[in-house]
Amino acid sequence: MQKKAVLIYSGGMDSYTLLNQVIHDGLKPEELACLTFDYGQKHNKEIVYAQNVCKGLGITHKVIDITSINSLLGGSSLTDDIEIPEGHYEEDSMQSTVVPNRNMILLSLAVAYAVSLEADTVYYGAHSGDHAIYPDCRPEFVQKMDAVCRIANYQSVTIKTPFLHDSKIEILRKGLALGLDYSKSWTCYNGREAACGKCGACVERLEAFSENNVVDPLTYEK
Amino acid sequence: MQKKAVLIYSGGMDSYTLLNQVIHDGLKPEELACLTFDYGQKHNKEIVYAQNVCKGLGITHKVIDITSINSLLGGSSLTDDIEIPEGHYEEDSMQSTVVPNRNMILLSLAVAYAVSLEADTVYYGAHSGDHAIYPDCRPEFVQKMDAVCRIANYQSVTIKTPFLHDSKIEILRKGLALGLDYSKSWTCYNGREAACGKCGACVERLEAFSENNVVDPLTYEK
Repeated sequence: MQKKAVLIYSGGMDSYTLLNQVIHDGLKPEELACLTFDYGQKHNKEIVYAQNVCKGLGITHKVIDITSINSLLGGSSLTDDIEIPEGHYEEDSMQSTVVPNRNMILLSLAVAYAVSLEADTVYYGAHSGDHAIYPDCRPEFVQKMDAVCRIANYQSVTIKTPFLHDSKIEILRKGLALGLDYSKSWTCYNGREAACGKCGACVERLEAFSENNVVDPLTYEK
Repeated sequence: MQKKAVLIYSGGMDSYTLLNQVIHDGLKPEELACLTFDYGQKHNKEIVYAQNVCKGLGITHKVIDITSINSLLGGSSLTDDIEIPEGHYEEDSMQSTVVPNRNMILLSLAVAYAVSLEADTVYYGAHSGDHAIYPDCRPEFVQKMDAVCRIANYQSVTIKTPFLHDSKIEILRKGLALGLDYSKSWTCYNGREAACGKCGACVERLEAFSENNVVDPLTYEK
Protein backbone atom coordinates (compact mmCIF):
# COMPACT_ATOMS: atom_id res chain seq x y z
CA MET A 1 0.00 0.00 0.00
CA GLN A 2 1.13 3.56 -0.78
CA LYS A 3 2.79 5.10 2.28
CA LYS A 4 1.38 8.39 3.50
CA ALA A 5 3.76 9.22 6.33
CA VAL A 6 7.09 8.49 7.99
CA LEU A 7 7.19 8.61 11.79
CA ILE A 8 10.45 9.12 13.68
CA TYR A 9 10.22 6.45 16.34
CA SER A 10 12.86 6.32 19.05
CA GLY A 11 11.10 3.64 21.09
CA GLY A 12 10.58 6.09 23.95
CA MET A 13 7.24 7.04 25.49
CA ASP A 14 6.64 10.20 23.41
CA SER A 15 7.04 8.58 19.99
CA TYR A 16 5.27 5.41 21.23
CA THR A 17 2.29 7.60 22.14
CA LEU A 18 2.55 9.55 18.88
CA LEU A 19 2.58 6.37 16.80
CA ASN A 20 -0.55 5.08 18.48
CA GLN A 21 -2.22 8.50 18.38
CA VAL A 22 -1.85 8.88 14.59
CA ILE A 23 -3.22 5.38 14.06
CA HIS A 24 -6.10 6.16 16.44
CA ASP A 25 -6.72 9.35 14.42
CA GLY A 26 -7.18 7.37 11.22
CA LEU A 27 -3.87 6.51 9.59
CA LYS A 28 -3.72 2.81 8.69
CA PRO A 29 -0.63 0.96 9.94
CA GLU A 30 0.09 -0.05 6.31
CA GLU A 31 0.18 3.64 5.32
CA LEU A 32 2.91 4.36 7.84
CA ALA A 33 6.66 3.69 7.89
CA CYS A 34 8.61 4.09 11.13
CA LEU A 35 12.23 5.20 11.18
CA THR A 36 14.58 4.60 14.10
CA PHE A 37 18.10 6.00 14.36
CA ASP A 38 20.99 4.07 15.79
CA TYR A 39 23.43 6.84 16.63
CA GLY A 40 25.53 4.79 19.01
CA GLN A 41 23.37 5.77 21.98
CA LYS A 42 24.07 3.90 25.23
CA HIS A 43 20.33 3.36 25.52
CA ASN A 44 20.02 1.28 22.34
CA LYS A 45 17.53 -0.93 24.16
CA GLU A 46 14.96 1.56 22.90
CA ILE A 47 15.66 0.33 19.35
CA VAL A 48 14.61 -3.20 20.34
CA TYR A 49 11.47 -1.79 21.95
CA ALA A 50 10.70 0.11 18.72
CA GLN A 51 11.18 -3.04 16.63
CA ASN A 52 8.85 -5.05 18.82
CA VAL A 53 6.08 -2.47 18.73
CA CYS A 54 6.27 -2.08 14.93
CA LYS A 55 6.21 -5.85 14.47
CA GLY A 56 3.15 -6.09 16.70
CA LEU A 57 1.30 -3.40 14.75
CA GLY A 58 2.40 -4.63 11.30
CA ILE A 59 4.22 -1.40 10.46
CA THR A 60 7.15 -1.08 8.04
CA HIS A 61 10.17 -0.28 10.21
CA LYS A 62 13.61 0.86 9.15
CA VAL A 63 16.56 1.20 11.55
CA ILE A 64 19.34 3.33 10.14
CA ASP A 65 22.86 3.27 11.52
CA ILE A 66 24.20 6.81 11.70
CA THR A 67 27.02 6.14 14.18
CA SER A 68 29.56 7.30 11.59
CA ILE A 69 28.38 10.87 12.06
CA ASN A 70 29.61 10.88 15.66
CA SER A 71 33.09 11.54 14.30
CA LEU A 72 31.78 14.99 13.33
CA LEU A 73 30.46 15.96 16.68
CA GLY A 74 31.87 17.15 19.94
CA GLY A 75 31.20 15.23 23.12
CA SER A 76 27.70 14.29 24.17
CA SER A 77 27.20 12.08 27.19
CA LEU A 78 24.56 10.13 25.23
CA THR A 79 27.20 8.65 22.94
CA ASP A 80 30.63 9.22 24.49
CA ASP A 81 32.43 7.99 27.57
CA ILE A 82 31.10 10.86 29.62
CA GLU A 83 29.00 9.79 32.58
CA ILE A 84 25.29 10.46 32.06
CA PRO A 85 24.25 13.14 34.52
CA GLU A 86 21.65 12.42 37.17
CA GLY A 87 18.79 14.72 38.03
CA HIS A 88 16.16 16.72 36.20
CA TYR A 89 16.39 17.78 32.56
CA GLU A 90 15.99 21.45 33.26
CA GLU A 91 19.36 21.64 34.95
CA ASP A 92 22.63 22.91 33.50
CA SER A 93 24.17 19.46 33.84
CA MET A 94 21.84 18.23 31.09
CA GLN A 95 23.61 20.36 28.47
CA SER A 96 26.01 17.43 28.04
CA THR A 97 23.12 15.40 26.57
CA VAL A 98 22.79 17.87 23.66
CA VAL A 99 23.91 16.40 20.33
CA PRO A 100 24.63 19.33 17.97
CA ASN A 101 21.93 19.90 15.37
CA ARG A 102 20.42 16.51 16.19
CA ASN A 103 16.83 17.07 15.12
CA MET A 104 17.72 18.74 11.83
CA ILE A 105 19.87 15.74 10.93
CA LEU A 106 17.15 13.25 11.90
CA LEU A 107 14.42 15.22 10.12
CA SER A 108 16.47 15.64 6.95
CA LEU A 109 16.97 11.86 6.80
CA ALA A 110 13.31 11.18 7.57
CA VAL A 111 12.30 13.57 4.78
CA ALA A 112 14.63 11.73 2.37
CA TYR A 113 12.95 8.47 3.37
CA ALA A 114 9.52 10.04 2.91
CA VAL A 115 10.43 11.30 -0.58
CA SER A 116 11.71 7.85 -1.57
CA LEU A 117 8.34 6.38 -0.43
CA GLU A 118 6.34 9.23 -2.04
CA ALA A 119 4.89 10.02 1.39
CA ASP A 120 4.05 13.66 2.14
CA THR A 121 4.29 13.81 5.94
CA VAL A 122 6.93 13.28 8.62
CA TYR A 123 5.71 12.94 12.21
CA TYR A 124 7.98 13.51 15.14
CA GLY A 125 7.41 13.77 18.84
CA ALA A 126 8.82 17.19 19.76
CA HIS A 127 7.11 18.42 22.93
CA SER A 128 7.16 21.45 25.17
CA GLY A 129 9.20 19.79 27.92
CA ASP A 130 12.25 19.80 25.67
CA HIS A 131 12.03 23.46 24.65
CA ALA A 132 14.22 24.88 27.39
CA ILE A 133 17.16 22.56 26.94
CA TYR A 134 17.05 21.71 23.23
CA PRO A 135 16.88 24.65 20.77
CA ASP A 136 15.82 22.25 18.01
CA CYS A 137 12.64 21.26 19.85
CA ARG A 138 11.16 24.78 19.92
CA PRO A 139 8.08 25.74 17.87
CA GLU A 140 10.17 28.25 15.89
CA PHE A 141 12.52 25.44 14.81
CA VAL A 142 9.66 23.17 13.78
CA GLN A 143 7.97 25.97 11.82
CA LYS A 144 11.14 26.90 9.90
CA MET A 145 12.07 23.27 9.32
CA ASP A 146 8.59 22.62 7.93
CA ALA A 147 8.96 25.63 5.61
CA VAL A 148 12.15 24.30 4.06
CA CYS A 149 10.94 20.68 3.85
CA ARG A 150 7.90 21.77 1.85
CA ILE A 151 10.07 23.10 -0.98
CA ALA A 152 13.28 21.06 -0.83
CA ASN A 153 12.20 18.22 -3.14
CA TYR A 154 9.85 17.57 -6.06
CA GLN A 155 7.70 15.82 -3.44
CA SER A 156 6.60 18.38 -0.82
CA VAL A 157 6.90 17.05 2.73
CA THR A 158 5.22 18.50 5.83
CA ILE A 159 6.60 18.16 9.35
CA LYS A 160 3.86 17.37 11.88
CA THR A 161 4.45 17.55 15.62
CA PRO A 162 1.06 17.00 17.30
CA PHE A 163 2.60 17.12 20.80
CA LEU A 164 4.58 20.33 20.30
CA HIS A 165 2.66 22.23 22.97
CA ASP A 166 2.14 19.29 25.34
CA SER A 167 4.26 18.45 28.32
CA LYS A 168 5.36 14.86 28.90
CA ILE A 169 2.67 14.67 31.57
CA GLU A 170 0.00 15.58 29.02
CA ILE A 171 1.39 13.19 26.42
CA LEU A 172 1.19 10.36 28.93
CA ARG A 173 -2.36 11.40 29.86
CA LYS A 174 -3.34 11.10 26.19
CA GLY A 175 -1.66 7.73 25.86
CA LEU A 176 -3.30 6.38 29.00
CA ALA A 177 -6.65 7.55 27.61
CA LEU A 178 -5.90 5.40 24.53
CA GLY A 179 -5.26 2.47 26.86
CA LEU A 180 -1.57 2.16 25.90
CA ASP A 181 0.77 -0.27 27.64
CA TYR A 182 3.89 1.73 28.54
CA SER A 183 5.90 -1.38 29.35
CA LYS A 184 6.39 -1.37 25.55
CA SER A 185 8.38 1.87 25.66
CA TRP A 186 11.94 2.48 26.89
CA THR A 187 13.18 5.82 28.17
CA CYS A 188 16.32 5.42 30.33
CA TYR A 189 19.53 6.93 28.95
CA ASN A 190 21.55 4.08 30.52
CA GLY A 191 21.10 0.86 28.52
CA ARG A 192 21.13 -1.56 31.45
CA GLU A 193 18.73 -4.44 32.23
CA ALA A 194 16.39 -2.29 34.33
CA ALA A 195 15.84 1.47 34.01
CA CYS A 196 18.14 3.48 36.32
CA GLY A 197 15.47 5.82 37.66
CA LYS A 198 18.05 8.59 38.10
CA CYS A 199 18.98 10.01 34.67
CA GLY A 200 17.12 13.02 33.31
CA ALA A 201 14.96 10.86 31.06
CA CYS A 202 13.93 8.50 33.89
CA VAL A 203 13.27 11.37 36.31
CA GLU A 204 10.98 13.02 33.77
CA ARG A 205 9.20 9.77 32.93
CA LEU A 206 8.61 8.92 36.58
CA GLU A 207 7.36 12.46 37.21
CA ALA A 208 4.86 12.09 34.34
CA PHE A 209 3.53 8.81 35.80
CA SER A 210 3.37 10.28 39.27
CA GLU A 211 1.45 13.34 38.03
CA ASN A 212 -1.01 11.00 36.31
CA ASN A 213 -1.37 8.92 39.49
CA VAL A 214 -0.31 5.79 37.65
CA VAL A 215 2.53 3.38 38.43
CA ASP A 216 5.07 2.98 35.61
CA PRO A 217 4.95 -0.68 34.49
CA LEU A 218 8.71 -0.69 33.66
CA THR A 219 11.17 -2.32 36.07
CA TYR A 220 13.60 0.07 37.79
CA GLU A 221 16.88 -0.53 39.61
CA LYS A 222 16.19 -0.05 43.29
CA MET B 1 43.21 28.45 15.93
CA GLN B 2 39.48 29.03 16.40
CA LYS B 3 37.57 27.89 13.30
CA LYS B 4 35.27 30.43 11.69
CA ALA B 5 33.69 28.35 8.94
CA VAL B 6 33.02 24.88 7.58
CA LEU B 7 33.10 24.46 3.80
CA ILE B 8 31.38 21.55 2.07
CA TYR B 9 34.04 20.36 -0.31
CA SER B 10 33.20 17.67 -2.83
CA GLY B 11 36.49 17.90 -4.68
CA GLY B 12 34.69 19.14 -7.80
CA MET B 13 35.38 22.38 -9.62
CA ASP B 14 32.66 24.47 -7.94
CA SER B 15 33.72 23.77 -4.35
CA TYR B 16 37.41 23.91 -5.36
CA THR B 17 36.79 27.41 -6.67
CA LEU B 18 34.70 28.33 -3.62
CA LEU B 19 37.43 27.18 -1.23
CA ASN B 20 40.04 29.29 -2.97
CA GLN B 21 37.67 32.24 -3.31
CA VAL B 22 36.91 32.44 0.45
CA ILE B 23 40.65 32.25 1.22
CA HIS B 24 41.32 34.94 -1.38
CA ASP B 25 38.58 37.03 0.23
CA GLY B 26 40.36 36.95 3.59
CA LEU B 27 39.62 33.74 5.51
CA LYS B 28 42.82 32.15 6.76
CA PRO B 29 43.25 28.44 5.91
CA GLU B 30 43.61 27.73 9.67
CA GLU B 31 40.18 29.31 10.29
CA LEU B 32 38.53 26.91 7.88
CA ALA B 33 37.52 23.25 8.13
CA CYS B 34 36.53 21.35 5.00
CA LEU B 35 33.98 18.55 5.06
CA THR B 36 33.69 15.88 2.36
CA PHE B 37 30.94 13.27 2.19
CA ASP B 38 31.52 9.71 1.15
CA TYR B 39 28.02 8.59 0.17
CA GLY B 40 29.14 5.62 -1.86
CA GLN B 41 29.36 7.66 -5.04
CA LYS B 42 30.96 5.94 -8.00
CA HIS B 43 33.07 9.03 -8.49
CA ASN B 44 34.87 8.76 -5.14
CA LYS B 45 38.04 9.90 -6.86
CA GLU B 46 36.82 13.38 -6.03
CA ILE B 47 37.42 12.59 -2.35
CA VAL B 48 41.11 11.95 -3.03
CA TYR B 49 41.28 15.20 -4.98
CA ALA B 50 39.71 17.03 -2.01
CA GLN B 51 42.20 15.47 0.42
CA ASN B 52 45.16 16.50 -1.70
CA VAL B 53 44.01 20.10 -2.05
CA CYS B 54 43.35 20.47 1.70
CA LYS B 55 46.74 18.97 2.54
CA GLY B 56 48.41 21.40 0.16
CA LEU B 57 46.65 24.41 1.69
CA GLY B 58 47.06 23.24 5.32
CA ILE B 59 43.31 23.05 5.93
CA THR B 60 41.62 20.78 8.49
CA HIS B 61 39.74 18.18 6.45
CA LYS B 62 37.17 15.68 7.60
CA VAL B 63 35.74 12.92 5.38
CA ILE B 64 32.53 11.45 6.74
CA ASP B 65 31.17 8.11 5.59
CA ILE B 66 27.41 8.37 5.12
CA THR B 67 26.97 5.31 2.92
CA SER B 68 24.66 3.76 5.53
CA ILE B 69 21.98 6.29 4.63
CA ASN B 70 21.68 4.84 1.13
CA SER B 71 19.50 2.11 2.63
CA LEU B 72 16.89 4.85 3.17
CA LEU B 73 16.79 6.12 -0.33
CA GLY B 74 15.33 5.05 -3.60
CA GLY B 75 17.55 4.50 -6.61
CA SER B 76 19.95 7.17 -7.76
CA SER B 77 22.36 6.39 -10.56
CA LEU B 78 25.12 8.15 -8.59
CA THR B 79 25.17 5.38 -6.00
CA ASP B 80 23.27 2.37 -7.37
CA ASP B 81 23.83 -0.08 -10.18
CA ILE B 82 21.93 2.12 -12.58
CA GLU B 83 24.02 3.27 -15.53
CA ILE B 84 24.97 6.93 -15.32
CA PRO B 85 23.15 8.75 -18.13
CA GLU B 86 25.09 10.52 -20.86
CA GLY B 87 24.28 13.98 -22.13
CA HIS B 88 23.51 17.38 -20.69
CA TYR B 89 22.24 18.00 -17.16
CA GLU B 90 19.14 19.84 -18.25
CA GLU B 91 17.64 16.70 -19.74
CA ASP B 92 15.00 14.45 -18.24
CA SER B 93 17.45 11.55 -18.11
CA MET B 94 19.39 13.39 -15.39
CA GLN B 95 16.54 12.99 -12.90
CA SER B 96 18.11 9.64 -12.03
CA THR B 97 21.08 11.51 -10.54
CA VAL B 98 18.83 13.13 -7.92
CA VAL B 99 19.45 11.84 -4.39
CA PRO B 100 16.35 12.66 -2.30
CA ASN B 101 16.83 15.60 0.05
CA ARG B 102 20.58 15.46 -0.53
CA ASN B 103 21.56 19.03 0.25
CA MET B 104 19.45 19.25 3.41
CA ILE B 105 21.18 16.13 4.74
CA LEU B 106 24.65 17.43 3.86
CA LEU B 107 23.95 20.91 5.25
CA SER B 108 22.48 19.55 8.49
CA LEU B 109 25.66 17.53 9.04
CA ALA B 110 27.89 20.46 8.11
CA VAL B 111 25.99 22.66 10.58
CA ALA B 112 26.50 20.02 13.31
CA TYR B 113 30.23 20.05 12.54
CA ALA B 114 30.26 23.86 12.62
CA VAL B 115 28.51 23.91 16.01
CA SER B 116 31.00 21.41 17.42
CA LEU B 117 33.84 23.71 16.25
CA GLU B 118 32.03 26.87 17.43
CA ALA B 119 32.15 28.17 13.84
CA ASP B 120 29.30 30.38 12.67
CA THR B 121 29.30 29.85 8.90
CA VAL B 122 28.82 26.98 6.46
CA TYR B 123 29.87 27.58 2.86
CA TYR B 124 28.57 25.49 0.02
CA GLY B 125 28.81 25.74 -3.72
CA ALA B 126 25.20 25.81 -4.88
CA HIS B 127 25.03 27.56 -8.25
CA SER B 128 22.44 28.58 -10.78
CA GLY B 129 23.22 25.76 -13.24
CA ASP B 130 21.75 23.25 -10.80
CA HIS B 131 18.46 25.09 -10.19
CA ALA B 132 16.44 23.43 -12.89
CA ILE B 133 17.24 19.86 -12.00
CA TYR B 134 17.82 19.97 -8.23
CA PRO B 135 15.07 21.62 -6.12
CA ASP B 136 17.51 21.83 -3.19
CA CYS B 137 19.89 24.09 -5.13
CA ARG B 138 17.36 26.89 -5.64
CA PRO B 139 17.70 30.29 -3.92
CA GLU B 140 14.42 29.65 -2.07
CA PHE B 141 15.84 26.47 -0.55
CA VAL B 142 19.06 28.19 0.53
CA GLN B 143 17.14 31.09 2.07
CA LYS B 144 14.82 28.83 4.08
CA MET B 145 17.65 26.51 5.08
CA ASP B 146 19.64 29.50 6.30
CA ALA B 147 16.63 30.68 8.33
CA VAL B 148 16.35 27.40 10.22
CA CYS B 149 20.12 26.98 10.71
CA ARG B 150 20.32 30.38 12.37
CA ILE B 151 18.02 29.27 15.19
CA ALA B 152 18.48 25.49 15.46
CA ASN B 153 21.36 25.50 17.97
CA TYR B 154 22.77 27.64 20.79
CA GLN B 155 25.42 28.57 18.21
CA SER B 156 23.77 30.38 15.31
CA VAL B 157 25.06 29.19 11.92
CA THR B 158 24.66 31.01 8.59
CA ILE B 159 24.61 29.27 5.22
CA LYS B 160 26.65 31.15 2.62
CA THR B 161 26.48 30.33 -1.08
CA PRO B 162 28.54 32.98 -2.89
CA PHE B 163 28.00 31.30 -6.29
CA LEU B 164 24.23 30.92 -6.01
CA HIS B 165 23.51 33.19 -8.96
CA ASP B 166 26.53 32.19 -11.04
CA SER B 167 26.58 29.61 -13.80
CA LYS B 168 29.38 27.05 -13.93
CA ILE B 169 30.87 29.12 -16.73
CA GLU B 170 31.01 32.17 -14.45
CA ILE B 171 32.43 30.17 -11.54
CA LEU B 172 35.23 28.90 -13.76
CA ARG B 173 35.86 32.44 -15.01
CA LYS B 174 36.31 33.58 -11.39
CA GLY B 175 38.61 30.67 -10.61
CA LEU B 176 40.73 31.26 -13.70
CA ALA B 177 41.04 34.92 -12.65
CA LEU B 178 42.43 33.63 -9.33
CA GLY B 179 44.96 31.58 -11.30
CA LEU B 180 43.61 28.22 -10.09
CA ASP B 181 44.89 24.92 -11.44
CA TYR B 182 41.81 22.86 -12.33
CA SER B 183 43.80 19.66 -12.70
CA LYS B 184 43.34 19.59 -8.90
CA SER B 185 39.54 19.16 -9.21
CA TRP B 186 37.56 16.09 -10.27
CA THR B 187 34.10 16.25 -11.81
CA CYS B 188 33.25 13.04 -13.69
CA TYR B 189 30.42 10.91 -12.27
CA ASN B 190 32.22 7.74 -13.42
CA GLY B 191 35.20 6.99 -11.17
CA ARG B 192 37.57 5.65 -13.82
CA GLU B 193 41.24 6.53 -14.43
CA ALA B 194 40.43 9.33 -16.87
CA ALA B 195 37.26 11.43 -16.98
CA CYS B 196 34.60 9.99 -19.32
CA GLY B 197 33.72 13.25 -21.06
CA LYS B 198 30.15 12.03 -21.61
CA CYS B 199 28.25 12.14 -18.30
CA GLY B 200 26.25 15.24 -17.38
CA ALA B 201 28.99 16.50 -15.06
CA CYS B 202 31.73 16.14 -17.70
CA VAL B 203 29.59 17.70 -20.43
CA GLU B 204 28.93 20.72 -18.22
CA ARG B 205 32.57 21.02 -17.18
CA LEU B 206 33.82 20.85 -20.76
CA GLU B 207 31.21 23.40 -21.81
CA ALA B 208 32.45 25.79 -19.08
CA PHE B 209 36.05 25.46 -20.26
CA SER B 210 35.03 25.88 -23.87
CA GLU B 211 33.02 29.02 -23.07
CA ASN B 212 36.08 30.42 -21.27
CA ASN B 213 38.31 29.57 -24.25
CA VAL B 214 40.56 27.47 -22.03
CA VAL B 215 41.56 23.81 -22.40
CA ASP B 216 40.63 21.64 -19.40
CA PRO B 217 43.91 20.31 -17.93
CA LEU B 218 42.26 17.00 -16.87
CA THR B 219 42.82 13.87 -18.94
CA TYR B 220 39.74 12.48 -20.75
CA GLU B 221 38.98 9.10 -22.26
CA LYS B 222 39.11 9.57 -26.02
